Amino acid sequence: MHTLLLKNAWLDGACKNVLIEDCRFKTIGAPDGTPADEVIDASGKALLPPFYNTHTHAAMSLLRGYADDMPLQRWLTDYIWPFENKMTAADIRKGSLLAAREMITTGTVFFSDMYFDIDETIKVVQETGMRAAIGVTFVESHTKSQQYEKLETLRHWVDPTGGLITLTVAPHAVYTVGPELLVRCAEVARELGMKLHIHLSETRREVDDCIREHSMTPVRYLDKLGVLGDNVIAAHVVHVDEEEAAILAARGVTISHCPCSNMKLASGVFPYKMLHKAGCRITLGTDGDSSNNNLDMREEMKFAALQAKSSSGDPETMPADEALAMATRAGAEAFGIDAGVIAEGKLADALLVDLQDVQMQPLHNLVSNWVYAASSRCIDTVICNGKVLMTQSR
Amino acid sequence: MHTLLLKNAWLDGACKNVLIEDCRFKTIGAPDGTPADEVIDASGKALLPPFYNTHTHAAMSLLRGYADDMPLQRWLTDYIWPFENKMTAADIRKGSLLAAREMITTGTVFFSDMYFDIDETIKVVQETGMRAAIGVTFVESHTKSQQYEKLETLRHWVDPTGGLITLTVAPHAVYTVGPELLVRCAEVARELGMKLHIHLSETRREVDDCIREHSMTPVRYLDKLGVLGDNVIAAHVVHVDEEEAAILAARGVTISHCPCSNMKLASGVFPYKMLHKAGCRITLGTDGDSSNNNLDMREEMKFAALQAKSSSGDPETMPADEALAMATRAGAEAFGIDAGVIAEGKLADALLVDLQDVQMQPLHNLVSNWVYAASSRCIDTVICNGKVLMTQSR
Repeated sequence: MHTLLLKNAWLDGACKNVLIEDCRFKTIGAPDGTPADEVIDASGKALLPPFYNTHTHAAMSLLRGYADDMPLQRWLTDYIWPFENKMTAADIRKGSLLAAREMITTGTVFFSDMYFDIDETIKVVQETGMRAAIGVTFVESHTKSQQYEKLETLRHWVDPTGGLITLTVAPHAVYTVGPELLVRCAEVARELGMKLHIHLSETRREVDDCIREHSMTPVRYLDKLGVLGDNVIAAHVVHVDEEEAAILAARGVTISHCPCSNMKLASGVFPYKMLHKAGCRITLGTDGDSSNNNLDMREEMKFAALQAKSSSGDPETMPADEALAMATRAGAEAFGIDAGVIAEGKLADALLVDLQDVQMQPLHNLVSNWVYAASSRCIDTVICNGKVLMTQSR
Repeated sequence: MHTLLLKNAWLDGACKNVLIEDCRFKTIGAPDGTPADEVIDASGKALLPPFYNTHTHAAMSLLRGYADDMPLQRWLTDYIWPFENKMTAADIRKGSLLAAREMITTGTVFFSDMYFDIDETIKVVQETGMRAAIGVTFVESHTKSQQYEKLETLRHWVDPTGGLITLTVAPHAVYTVGPELLVRCAEVARELGMKLHIHLSETRREVDDCIREHSMTPVRYLDKLGVLGDNVIAAHVVHVDEEEAAILAARGVTISHCPCSNMKLASGVFPYKMLHKAGCRITLGTDGDSSNNNLDMREEMKFAALQAKSSSGDPETMPADEALAMATRAGAEAFGIDAGVIAEGKLADALLVDLQDVQMQPLHNLVSNWVYAASSRCIDTVICNGKVLMTQSR
């Protein structure tokens, strides 16, 4: 048993000692002098839940700034794909490591990844102590033997960390995966109790092409195929109508909203107010470094909230606590991680945020400061599963 | 004469020694071993222009997080104004100091301010070594003697720093200042060679009220009064049509675009593409901490660029270098400050940005990384007028 004591952390409007035993919060409000194997002085720091990034492509950090400010199709065909075609396993390792470092220093302890190679990214996650859901990606252009190999991976893979990493079944999108393979992916995910991670209704073009080919929109098409369920993580979901919002809510689909990527690529405006009203479960993702261009979930919260207000014309849309919940506990819940809130018995994932930083002053409203005013420089300590991944207070 | 040498700074794709003599860049590419009174090791750091924030209310940093996520009118009448009514000179000093610290640590060396008291803010600027254009604010509700006093201040004020601070004539807006006083302000500004700083067409309501009262939109109304000229700094400019854009361009008005504030208050969507096409001079501002909720111009650049792309549906709108120019040299130019670019003979305002930070890696494109990926934690050194305001490299 290992114990970690956070001394005098600011939580719910008061200074408290917080005792972590192994991977869980044991006591909120432990007495002064509580013994522990490891002690962090959390004076002047707020204890907040860390971030759960529900859609990214970690290794694409190598493409940060490689191609910007151009139409999606040119971006993909002239820059991203040719670059990716040359990427080796060593490159994917470098990219995943850069991304993991970026995520940890910006307060993220979990990411849901989708990329064409998983081995190096898994090794990096294991080394850093983060959590991750690593997508085993399916695209139609794979050979039968590649698909067979991927299915075998899904069936026989064992988490080397004993709990921090899961695999997800990740059919890329309706325009890269045919109906038969989509159905097969959904069946396998259900059979193995796994999440299914897919890009969905990201661009107008995707929707138009789907209507042309299948006589219906992507959401209706996936629903007709029986793919949609409460294990589905759908990234983007920009171009949907009210009826589709109702379908997504009824099926319990988790949406990964990626505001920066949608805005930067001009993919369309996420209909937050409508989806929220329909009762959809909405989480937050950064997408890859190549279309954002960072993995900074604090910044992503601000973009989500301000874009929701601006596009709805209503400043009451997505208040700060809603943005924070999307980026933290909603993401954890969607992936069945018993964390995302600071409470006794929960998995000990947390941040210490420096309240002395000028951007956190004055302290009229902690959550508002964190969502709208702070930046990653305010992050002092990052804890995942009871272990300190980064700290400036030791 | 004081000399400052930046050793091995990354500039235009190469490592260079940069010599600053007193307040100006003397030599870009000075030989190794160049003697200097003060040396900063700039290895692994990019030399970039700092930020010029063309619209803010510094002392309102005290209201950061005090009231959020509510309609503008309730925000103003129930929260902001009652709070401000209780503010003392000591409060304004505290607020200005907090704002100055925030601006310096986020890379800003100049701000154009508008608030009801100027003395304490001027003292703070003098102490910190920043540049500022401090607005002497006019509203209709002032008494004749208050207005007289303000005019006297404008006529007889002497910059205590000998060059870093100017005053601006700041009629608050068309809905708080009547036509006679607006005209008087314009005359005084012209007579004294000063800038005129005003809120303009920020909300739909402002435009509707102006049409009701004066039978024309705020831009046309100010133009008819003869207020608009190349000394005018107009903040916001959200609700304008193409004809108004042409008027603003023809008069040489400088627009201070404040994307975060507009989005957070849901004031409307800044028509960047249209104003840019019309040839308007567009700069960047944060507005006050109470509606943003920070003064971080790096973040503001990203919001400006992503909002411009998203709202126009065109990812080529406002590329990264355009966003950077808005936030730097366009702001300096608008206020007649001979800075905003790193070049021999220019005033020595600069940042050193840490290229080792994971968010600045890899270095495919420095400007893209800076605008889209970085955060204020990457700022290592801030130099204003040849003096180091902050550094982590000494």
